[in-house]
Amino acid sequence: MKKTLLLTAAAFLSFPAIAQSPNRAERLRDSALKGDEVAWDIVEGLTTEIGPRPAGTESEARAREWAVRRLKALGFANVHVETYDMPVWVRGEEKAEIIAPFPQKLAVTALGNSGATPAGGITAEVVAFDSLAELEAAPESEVRGRIVFVTHKMTATQDGSQYGYYGAVRRTGPSVASRKGAAGIVIRSIGTDYHRNPHTGVQIWGAGAIPIPAAALSVPDAEQLERVLKRGKPVTIRLLLTPRNLGTRQSGNVVAEVRGSDPDAGIVLVGGHLDSWDLGTGAIDNAAGVAITAAAAKRIMAAGRPRRTIRVVWFGAEEVGGNGGDAYREAHKSEKIVFVSESDFGADRVWRMDPGFAEANAALAGRIAAALYPLGIARSTAAASGGADLGDWVTAGVAAIDLQQDGTRYFDYHHTADDTLDKVDPEQLRQNVAAWTAMLSLVADAPEEIHPKRAAP
Amino acid sequence: MKKTLLLTAAAFLSFPAIAQSPNRAERLRDSALKGDEVAWDIVEGLTTEIGPRPAGTESEARAREWAVRRLKALGFANVHVETYDMPVWVRGEEKAEIIAPFPQKLAVTALGNSGATPAGGITAEVVAFDSLAELEAAPESEVRGRIVFVTHKMTATQDGSQYGYYGAVRRTGPSVASRKGAAGIVIRSIGTDYHRNPHTGVQIWGAGAIPIPAAALSVPDAEQLERVLKRGKPVTIRLLLTPRNLGTRQSGNVVAEVRGSDPDAGIVLVGGHLDSWDLGTGAIDNAAGVAITAAAAKRIMAAGRPRRTIRVVWFGAEEVGGNGGDAYREAHKSEKIVFVSESDFGADRVWRMDPGFAEANAALAGRIAAALYPLGIARSTAAASGGADLGDWVTAGVAAIDLQQDGTRYFDYHHTADDTLDKVDPEQLRQNVAAWTAMLSLVADAPEEIHPKRAAP
Repeated sequence: MKKTLLLTAAAFLSFPAIAQSPNRAERLRDSALKGDEVAWDIVEGLTTEIGPRPAGTESEARAREWAVRRLKALGFANVHVETYDMPVWVRGEEKAEIIAPFPQKLAVTALGNSGATPAGGITAEVVAFDSLAELEAAPESEVRGRIVFVTHKMTATQDGSQYGYYGAVRRTGPSVASRKGAAGIVIRSIGTDYHRNPHTGVQIWGAGAIPIPAAALSVPDAEQLERVLKRGKPVTIRLLLTPRNLGTRQSGNVVAEVRGSDPDAGIVLVGGHLDSWDLGTGAIDNAAGVAITAAAAKRIMAAGRPRRTIRVVWFGAEEVGGNGGDAYREAHKSEKIVFVSESDFGADRVWRMDPGFAEANAALAGRIAAALYPLGIARSTAAASGGADLGDWVTAGVAAIDLQQDGTRYFDYHHTADDTLDKVDPEQLRQNVAAWTAMLSLVADAPEEIHPKRAAP
Repeated sequence: MKKTLLLTAAAFLSFPAIAQSPNRAERLRDSALKGDEVAWDIVEGLTTEIGPRPAGTESEARAREWAVRRLKALGFANVHVETYDMPVWVRGEEKAEIIAPFPQKLAVTALGNSGATPAGGITAEVVAFDSLAELEAAPESEVRGRIVFVTHKMTATQDGSQYGYYGAVRRTGPSVASRKGAAGIVIRSIGTDYHRNPHTGVQIWGAGAIPIPAAALSVPDAEQLERVLKRGKPVTIRLLLTPRNLGTRQSGNVVAEVRGSDPDAGIVLVGGHLDSWDLGTGAIDNAAGVAITAAAAKRIMAAGRPRRTIRVVWFGAEEVGGNGGDAYREAHKSEKIVFVSESDFGADRVWRMDPGFAEANAALAGRIAAALYPLGIARSTAAASGGADLGDWVTAGVAAIDLQQDGTRYFDYHHTADDTLDKVDPEQLRQNVAAWTAMLSLVADAPEEIHPKRAAP
């Protein structure tokens, strides 16, 4: 990865036509690639001085205070917090063990909104399924009173596309198991690593599903359980989970702006999310995203006032359901937001641009693609969809770009205790800032009108 | 690693002089390289059906029963258990967190023989040292009543040699801290990975050191604590550890033999250790070692009775102080053991042979080296030293060979929850069996006398 990046940067620097007459976006891009430290400092500071930032908790509140201080210190305008209320679920104790036939502990973590077991845990026979479809097809009589185990075959891919497909095991497996009367459910982590660090993640109880204990085994533990099951003897496990619902608490979005010179040209809205899961320090998910977007905006601000206002939002409560993004859209949907873009897929290099412009803005899309090619970024024919926090704007027709990051190792760490600073490669982080800086510069300063991709539905 | 192995195997197979007139050791070696499944089945079975096997516990006892069944099923002679008594320490709860200035949890595990904290833990200011030497040089007044943190700079090396040097932080750091009146000690794990899986390991309280809580932080947590300390504010942590001493319990060694035809030629004694730390399933440490040695002995047995009896011992209680090895030597030191060799450094390929023969056996050493070169194994000028379980035999003058394994990734997993089956590469495991088979065949069938390397001291 590093080698590719160096080669493409070198290729760019030796390309005379560009090197001899760099425009503003290209100059800003190259400066970021060579020396950005703002993004690293945000990731390092947030993960060190706050650490885990679960939504609606005191630590997320401390993160907002930290964010306000840091964004003000960086010189942003209109730095403030916009709060909202939300239901809060917090993790408790979590233990699992095979009782029979081969007693041993299993590494486990509760999924978001998991029900609790009694204080002594639950002990039940395991009924295993190789896929969500198998669980869905199973008769209630096979499932009732048992602990369901669902495994799957997720593998690492550069575009992270397996998360959508296999992630259904986590998102809906617990509800399916609950409806069939399961005592609890454990899934193979939605992850691609071989470490004893289970992957948490949110799941929402569907219609007719009462909360039951729902947890993920680490990948090595899931494969261990598969091997134990293959011996053909009944397998009994004990599961102890003591999460709690705290009721309604306050969360919030942190907002900062680079003021533009032309209020009529509309606002460029970008960001990532400030909250994280509680297990790690949320370095790749998503200190990196808030850092990349703010660092790019800061570079544009430092180079002089852009035409359009750039608004950076560090959203709260993304992990547990996108409460921050929803609250933000509800409060601001009547504003003239002409473009949105979100960074929320780690800190590894951008490899693809998915444009989301109206035909009338084809020239702008072309200028952005041209500024990104030297960073090794391809232009795709896939349409930008935004992300968890800004996707609704895209659905509503607002122009957008997705700068797709390399996800090859993202699901090794995603939602685990292993999401820590050491997983962030400073060189790839700078490539992200360079790409974002070029893109934001061209969008914010575009002389033409930025049209909706399509009329709001 | 795999590529190297394949290349060297291919190089061997295309070497006509050897390929056309393979002797017995070479034939056995190549057959193991192509198809050994015995070693994998032992590693898979032991880690799946027993899992963690801490010394002196019920699970180590189950492992002995499993071992006896498996070794009998493989056709070994004289399969039996030799028991001994030993003091047993077991892990309890373990938690650590930064209380101030940046509250967050830390991933921690108790070191062997750690003292316990009160049920509510201990809370104290941290005093940090960059090395064991710094701690040793510190005045008592700096340490008394505080929680000592010692970090270090261990890195991965092929020969694992950094473990000896930096391992002193774990082996003697707790005693030094205790003598200076520390409330407790946390060290940076003696490991080379970046996962939130701290590395346990034994430490023995030295003279004048009373047991205090002693634990290891994972490497990411140790670096996090370093970053927090660098902010220059006083750092307070809470440490909760509730290990217990269970008193005297029974442990044991499992013994199996391939009977030789010439009782006067002496016994060849090989093995690894059956016990493991409690955090993982002890796949690389040391299911692999017992599997490799037994699989090699089994291949020789299957090819016909060797001249010398090969005795395979799966030692108990290696991790906590070598109690099994000590008991075995005490009970058998008057037997005619003419050669020893131990496998206890994971499951990655053998890359070096360290011989330990008398000058009179130079020809035998040469034949063994010749049989190992095609596996990519170098002959070194380092002297064999045995290992934790058989080193005393070597010290006493018995001939030996160390087949050194690649340790590049060994300390990523060593003594952590991550020591699980998925870390074993079947291809490299087979290369180990091939090397051991060739070596054992040549030693067991050597027509010449095998001399002590030197007279017993």
